[in-house]
Amino acid sequence: MTHLYINQLKPGQMLDEVYMVTQPVLRNTTRGDLYIAMFLSDKTGKVNARMWQATEALYSSLPSEGFVHIRGKSELYQNALQVIINDIAIVNAEKVDLADYMPKTEKNVAKMFEETKAILGQIKDPGLKALVKEFLSDTELMREFVTAPSAMQMHHGYLGGLLEHTHNMLNVAVKLLPFYPKVQADLVLTGVFLHDIAKTKELSYKMGISYTDHGQLLGHIVLGAEMVNDKAAELAGKGIEIDQAVLDSLLHIIISHHGTYEFGSPKLPATAEAFMVNYIDDLDAKMNQVVNLIDNDPGDTNWTAYQRPLETKLYRKRPLK
Amino acid sequence: MTHLYINQLKPGQMLDEVYMVTQPVLRNTTRGDLYIAMFLSDKTGKVNARMWQATEALYSSLPSEGFVHIRGKSELYQNALQVIINDIAIVNAEKVDLADYMPKTEKNVAKMFEETKAILGQIKDPGLKALVKEFLSDTELMREFVTAPSAMQMHHGYLGGLLEHTHNMLNVAVKLLPFYPKVQADLVLTGVFLHDIAKTKELSYKMGISYTDHGQLLGHIVLGAEMVNDKAAELAGKGIEIDQAVLDSLLHIIISHHGTYEFGSPKLPATAEAFMVNYIDDLDAKMNQVVNLIDNDPGDTNWTAYQRPLETKLYRKRPLK
Amino acid sequence: MTHLYINQLKPGQMLDEVYMVTQPVLRNTTRGDLYIAMFLSDKTGKVNARMWQATEALYSSLPSEGFVHIRGKSELYQNALQVIINDIAIVNAEKVDLADYMPKTEKNVAKMFEETKAILGQIKDPGLKALVKEFLSDTELMREFVTAPSAMQMHHGYLGGLLEHTHNMLNVAVKLLPFYPKVQADLVLTGVFLHDIAKTKELSYKMGISYTDHGQLLGHIVLGAEMVNDKAAELAGKGIEIDQAVLDSLLHIIISHHGTYEFGSPKLPATAEAFMVNYIDDLDAKMNQVVNLIDNDPGDTNWTAYQRPLETKLYRKRPLK
Amino acid sequence: MTHLYINQLKPGQMLDEVYMVTQPVLRNTTRGDLYIAMFLSDKTGKVNARMWQATEALYSSLPSEGFVHIRGKSELYQNALQVIINDIAIVNAEKVDLADYMPKTEKNVAKMFEETKAILGQIKDPGLKALVKEFLSDTELMREFVTAPSAMQMHHGYLGGLLEHTHNMLNVAVKLLPFYPKVQADLVLTGVFLHDIAKTKELSYKMGISYTDHGQLLGHIVLGAEMVNDKAAELAGKGIEIDQAVLDSLLHIIISHHGTYEFGSPKLPATAEAFMVNYIDDLDAKMNQVVNLIDNDPGDTNWTAYQRPLETKLYRKRPLK
Amino acid sequence: MTHLYINQLKPGQMLDEVYMVTQPVLRNTTRGDLYIAMFLSDKTGKVNARMWQATEALYSSLPSEGFVHIRGKSELYQNALQVIINDIAIVNAEKVDLADYMPKTEKNVAKMFEETKAILGQIKDPGLKALVKEFLSDTELMREFVTAPSAMQMHHGYLGGLLEHTHNMLNVAVKLLPFYPKVQADLVLTGVFLHDIAKTKELSYKMGISYTDHGQLLGHIVLGAEMVNDKAAELAGKGIEIDQAVLDSLLHIIISHHGTYEFGSPKLPATAEAFMVNYIDDLDAKMNQVVNLIDNDPGDTNWTAYQRPLETKLYRKRPLK
Amino acid sequence: MTHLYINQLKPGQMLDEVYMVTQPVLRNTTRGDLYIAMFLSDKTGKVNARMWQATEALYSSLPSEGFVHIRGKSELYQNALQVIINDIAIVNAEKVDLADYMPKTEKNVAKMFEETKAILGQIKDPGLKALVKEFLSDTELMREFVTAPSAMQMHHGYLGGLLEHTHNMLNVAVKLLPFYPKVQADLVLTGVFLHDIAKTKELSYKMGISYTDHGQLLGHIVLGAEMVNDKAAELAGKGIEIDQAVLDSLLHIIISHHGTYEFGSPKLPATAEAFMVNYIDDLDAKMNQVVNLIDNDPGDTNWTAYQRPLETKLYRKRPLK
Repeated sequence: MTHLYINQLKPGQMLDEVYMVTQPVLRNTTRGDLYIAMFLSDKTGKVNARMWQATEALYSSLPSEGFVHIRGKSELYQNALQVIINDIAIVNAEKVDLADYMPKTEKNVAKMFEETKAILGQIKDPGLKALVKEFLSDTELMREFVTAPSAMQMHHGYLGGLLEHTHNMLNVAVKLLPFYPKVQADLVLTGVFLHDIAKTKELSYKMGISYTDHGQLLGHIVLGAEMVNDKAAELAGKGIEIDQAVLDSLLHIIISHHGTYEFGSPKLPATAEAFMVNYIDDLDAKMNQVVNLIDNDPGDTNWTAYQRPLETKLYRKRPLK
Repeated sequence: MTHLYINQLKPGQMLDEVYMVTQPVLRNTTRGDLYIAMFLSDKTGKVNARMWQATEALYSSLPSEGFVHIRGKSELYQNALQVIINDIAIVNAEKVDLADYMPKTEKNVAKMFEETKAILGQIKDPGLKALVKEFLSDTELMREFVTAPSAMQMHHGYLGGLLEHTHNMLNVAVKLLPFYPKVQADLVLTGVFLHDIAKTKELSYKMGISYTDHGQLLGHIVLGAEMVNDKAAELAGKGIEIDQAVLDSLLHIIISHHGTYEFGSPKLPATAEAFMVNYIDDLDAKMNQVVNLIDNDPGDTNWTAYQRPLETKLYRKRPLK
Repeated sequence: MTHLYINQLKPGQMLDEVYMVTQPVLRNTTRGDLYIAMFLSDKTGKVNARMWQATEALYSSLPSEGFVHIRGKSELYQNALQVIINDIAIVNAEKVDLADYMPKTEKNVAKMFEETKAILGQIKDPGLKALVKEFLSDTELMREFVTAPSAMQMHHGYLGGLLEHTHNMLNVAVKLLPFYPKVQADLVLTGVFLHDIAKTKELSYKMGISYTDHGQLLGHIVLGAEMVNDKAAELAGKGIEIDQAVLDSLLHIIISHHGTYEFGSPKLPATAEAFMVNYIDDLDAKMNQVVNLIDNDPGDTNWTAYQRPLETKLYRKRPLK
Repeated sequence: MTHLYINQLKPGQMLDEVYMVTQPVLRNTTRGDLYIAMFLSDKTGKVNARMWQATEALYSSLPSEGFVHIRGKSELYQNALQVIINDIAIVNAEKVDLADYMPKTEKNVAKMFEETKAILGQIKDPGLKALVKEFLSDTELMREFVTAPSAMQMHHGYLGGLLEHTHNMLNVAVKLLPFYPKVQADLVLTGVFLHDIAKTKELSYKMGISYTDHGQLLGHIVLGAEMVNDKAAELAGKGIEIDQAVLDSLLHIIISHHGTYEFGSPKLPATAEAFMVNYIDDLDAKMNQVVNLIDNDPGDTNWTAYQRPLETKLYRKRPLK
Repeated sequence: MTHLYINQLKPGQMLDEVYMVTQPVLRNTTRGDLYIAMFLSDKTGKVNARMWQATEALYSSLPSEGFVHIRGKSELYQNALQVIINDIAIVNAEKVDLADYMPKTEKNVAKMFEETKAILGQIKDPGLKALVKEFLSDTELMREFVTAPSAMQMHHGYLGGLLEHTHNMLNVAVKLLPFYPKVQADLVLTGVFLHDIAKTKELSYKMGISYTDHGQLLGHIVLGAEMVNDKAAELAGKGIEIDQAVLDSLLHIIISHHGTYEFGSPKLPATAEAFMVNYIDDLDAKMNQVVNLIDNDPGDTNWTAYQRPLETKLYRKRPLK
Repeated sequence: MTHLYINQLKPGQMLDEVYMVTQPVLRNTTRGDLYIAMFLSDKTGKVNARMWQATEALYSSLPSEGFVHIRGKSELYQNALQVIINDIAIVNAEKVDLADYMPKTEKNVAKMFEETKAILGQIKDPGLKALVKEFLSDTELMREFVTAPSAMQMHHGYLGGLLEHTHNMLNVAVKLLPFYPKVQADLVLTGVFLHDIAKTKELSYKMGISYTDHGQLLGHIVLGAEMVNDKAAELAGKGIEIDQAVLDSLLHIIISHHGTYEFGSPKLPATAEAFMVNYIDDLDAKMNQVVNLIDNDPGDTNWTAYQRPLETKLYRKRPLK
């Protein structure tokens, strides 16, 4: 049975569907009866819902965020859709197709990952080669790597966004490197691969995208450096020592890749390789962000709404035929 | 006869050479005799020079900046080289090989220009195609375009630097565009070609690189917009009208290409094309700047001196074998 | 028949009036009937309106912004006024008195323009004199010049605001110049006249004030320089050449008149004349802005609400008797 | 006998003159003899001086800054002038014409002060009128007011500069006020008169211009508020109470007249009067500063050296005939 | 009778209570009847109230902010509580226990004030000792000092907050001073005591906390300097002169205690004592602010909402057992 | 034999001493002879030295920085001391008393370390207790901890400075904690102990103080987090797991302790403990810095030279008796 998406709901439909529930609240009607207000959502939108004749027990059984199977009816209230729920039952997250509920990359994940590994296969420096291999053979981490988003909003803020962003940056790097022959390619490729690797730990994306405590307290820059140090220590335990200057240069790329202090880099780029990763990252993020902002802005004039992070509106018109 | 470069001078050499003279000053010795102090330079360096037994007439005949044929001798004074001049004669700038006196791109100018034209040949939009052609067929301007530096210092600050920078950016753009299919390629290519075209007017580079009054008062961003408007008006005079939205989008790329207000852009990028040109420009400039700073820093430790515009020292060591 | 202004409406009035309509939307009632929600406005305010029993055809005939003749009734809904429309008909903009619908200068436009021309008549430098005359004899442009606002909000944000602002600045300049005898008066007067001339192109003010695409992409600073260059080219075509240093100095005033990079000037003031125009502009704008903010703040305490652009509340009390 | 100015000295002159001495240091020659190195200066410049065969007693008798009558001879040393002193004697500051040693306004002090008083005579508000009178009748303070400089460098940095600046601002204010009828003139005129009154306490200008400890610790903004409060208290002691809102509005003008926090104003302008005083102050200061920088820049090209406080070079060429 | 707090109200209660009334508005019902809408509040919260069948006379008798004794009933309207008032009568502020209506320090005011005086008793410098005594014996001022809040929000924003903050800072200072023996303790203790003394004049806290006109125009930094100068003048009137350098050093601490220009200090700290007071102030304020933000944030996750002044969310979890 | 300090040298002394040599350069005299120019230094200063009749072999044998035993003579040259060297021999760094050559804390290192351990002994949380013990029992690291400086200049820029700073902060923390009972003391004490622990790796201080490559590329904030993670991993290897929230909170203190992004903290303080460590660090650093700047400023007026990092001069006068 196909899922009925929120943005396809019309007034007066009978519903028998699984949605994500968020922020359930138990309230009194003016007559003193109890009811539960909540939101139902999937990746296409969010709608108000009400369950009348509720009990405290039912309310207590609901998660503050989770999947529920509901039966009920859609209606218009004050010109907005809402759902009146008759029955509600909790659904195990493992039984739902997450892709219906969270936005996801439109690209082929498996193909992107294969291409990523192919590009990383070009690395020749033995230390970096071993390090990259150590990461790639951490299957649990790689499962997260291909699933994680790249951000909560901003750019690539959807499942698979981290891989899509990393994969695109690697492709760009491969094309750019020949124009800058003094830049050490192996450092750039490894740096691109690992620059955001700790997004897998900074963000939680089981259901909606949010920060983990770990991530909010330390950030993916510090966590990324830690992950690289840990893998290097594992390699050392196997007798493979990475040259300290090579390792420091790689770590420097990771911690400086935001380019400025105000964006949370504790060091500014001090090598050509660090500058290059910083620019490729920024370019790829901005291209994704600008295109998405233009595509998703609800207006219909030549300009989007004002975009605070960019300090400008965006011009939506495409003048070329 | 080959030129004897300043950085090849040794104490005690007899000299019969053409150098650039700068800042000649007429002074009195402690005994009251007149002498002229000046600098002699070529692209490899600068040295103090003294001409004893000078006259006011001789002094008045010297340009504040120009070429001179001198005869004299090098010596050490307070452990620094200086030149004692016996004869001095003004030389017409057209008779000297400028390449000996001003730093110049190490790449092949003719080849870069051919490749530039080839890439621009990919443009399909009729208005932009006509505009680019109008620029390319302005032979006087193109002569300046292939000669001008891109800056006084910073990046590509040598003859041919503007072409080298533009040519490299075009190559990069061609490689990047396939990864961002929503970006309108013709606008990017034309924008890259013309983003710094007014450096030809902002800078004076007949003898040393400096700002023109015109350039210092108005800047290459405003002058560049003016040059594009003038060419568009010429085209209109020939009956070829560029669509106003296309022209505005191109001009927007030019005036926003510095990316921030503090770097003199009167508008911030508001289209994907403007962001892309801004990033490619910044990337290519920084790569050139960082590599040059590392190559030319006089020290011999792992770090260059502190680079104020980058707010950091640069790490010179290349850790990869 | 006099217009019934929005801010004079009372509940329960029968209406037979022309208003500006904006943002009409076709919606369903809870019973499924169609109705149109829209705003009606004039220069004194804006009110919600509803037209029940609407059709898609009627909805499609309405402009997203335009004039309409409506018949209906005012009422209170949730303690706010709204208008119930029975009949609606589109009205041609040329048949309405724009002054009822858009705020306008309270000063005499014809008199201000005469005085403006009189002050500009003092200019003696032949090049600047010819340039000013060229602008003044462009009757279409002058019609815009005396009609345009100076901004969307901020200061002089009403029809005739550009002329009022320019006229006041010229008067101030005439009074200030004698105190600063080294300042070249002709440059200041011409600079004041033309500093905001491109507001006529940056802003659209046929119905409400907004940015044109042209203006939003390029801004009145770049467009102003272009307009001056175009007029200088026309003069050159007539055999009248303006000295390049004079023209550059004038253009420099225009592009630096915002005084700082962050306000969009691509060059900072570098002449006494540029500083003076920058200060007179800022002074006149702030006086207009502060007085308007104090006059129009809805509160009744000694202080206005916090004014973000000024980073302070304003003290409204006038302590002097 | 007329004073021989430092900038008129030539090598080989016999000297019998009074100069200001600064920074005397006792040193040993390579043979172990004692000598005193010092600077001699007047308002036109500064020169190195040496007194050979000195004694500790002589050295101890010299002030670190003061006037001395010297006899000696000028000579060239390493192509710079220096003075060899044979005799040196301390001169009482009261016996010298300070005008020879410190730069001074070129305008007529008495006339400026009369005009200042005439303009202040226009004030009608009884409280402000009484306050201004209280200041004007403080003869000791007024003697300082007409003598003090307005700054160490920057603008009006010469004796009489405070009066010249205040006088010019008052004249400008009188001309501007009619254009802004809502601005309360009495507050503006009193505010202009008193905005920098504490420069008389912040700066020491008996011999050279420097900060007093008092001034460096507290600044003329806080000291100015204190002086106004003190005078108001004196008036209150005489039974003349100034309305608190009037006094607060005046004090607000004084403490906000630098316009921004970063220039040391503890409050930002919050009244039209405060904005007006801030702008007139800034305008008059910048005009004086820019004209002086252009007049005094030693170069001979079209541009002055880079002026850090203005973030630009200044264009010195005056293009109008 | 104990007060029924707003946050204890339930729907359907009969009320006979004194509350603070704010923002009463006279409105028409859709049928044209008059009613008064207003807010009722105490220190625990605020609720909407309506009084139907109101008259203009009754409305005019109500203060825009004051205490009222109301009789009526609570009810739910659109799921929010509101109060329907039957009778309303004005209550004199002196008859209510302010502690019910405004938040207040939880510490013992009398004890804090005794300890404050005890610490100040350690001051030995005769001038500072006399000055502190002069303040302490101003009983009216001390009554304000122990009552005033320290801010509107931010930190210590409740009655007694100024004393609590000052008392805590003095205790901290006493503990810190032994570690920094070169710091002059008497200046630090006096500086801490007086740094915020003008909050008593800057803020109004009879009913709610707000700025006085005086305070908003001049700020507690300038007002604090004035209060110290006034007390020093009173002492001088009694023949007790404070050494000028001591007084200046104390005033410098007061005017620089915000530490940066952007926080309204007209001078930056220039003595060890000024730095120490600045740091103790900032530390004590931040500790109070952070603890309160964490305690009062309504959410129930590990993180508070984003705190704009701190540019971060706060981590609420206390990991230690 | 006691060391003859550089600041005790007088012209004409015969020297037979060990100094630190830096920057030796081989040069030609005007007659073509070789000589070596170099600097000799100890903790009290630096002096120019010349060794005439040098050879390339001798020059090559000298380190670019190291200890040498020299025989020679002091003399005055151009009024500055210089040393003429007759014999020079390299000295092993282990044979010299480093305390003569590098500035060092004036406090008792052993006593400070004992007190540090005593304070850390108060920690009760088992995880933090174990972690601190793990650090304290790393004898090699502790040897560095008690030797390292805290900075190159700024504050505590001398051997033992790290311990002195940490020890003082711990003492301050112990005194402050009782005033802020909600702050978790164990986290603060551990955070203070470890906040700068990576200065031992960031700085090189064998001979002069400089950055290591490691430190310059990564900084003590990232290196500090790595050191804590490594120790936690070692503990885990021994079966002692630190609670993740505790470890994250500690790491958060370390990475946020600079308090702002611009000072290189990748996260801003988000817990009361992090704020407290940030303030104690800043306070202790500033007190040390201000006192040192005042003590060491060479002038003799009431004010030091302008201190750029503090944006002010410092007032040196101590007004209290």
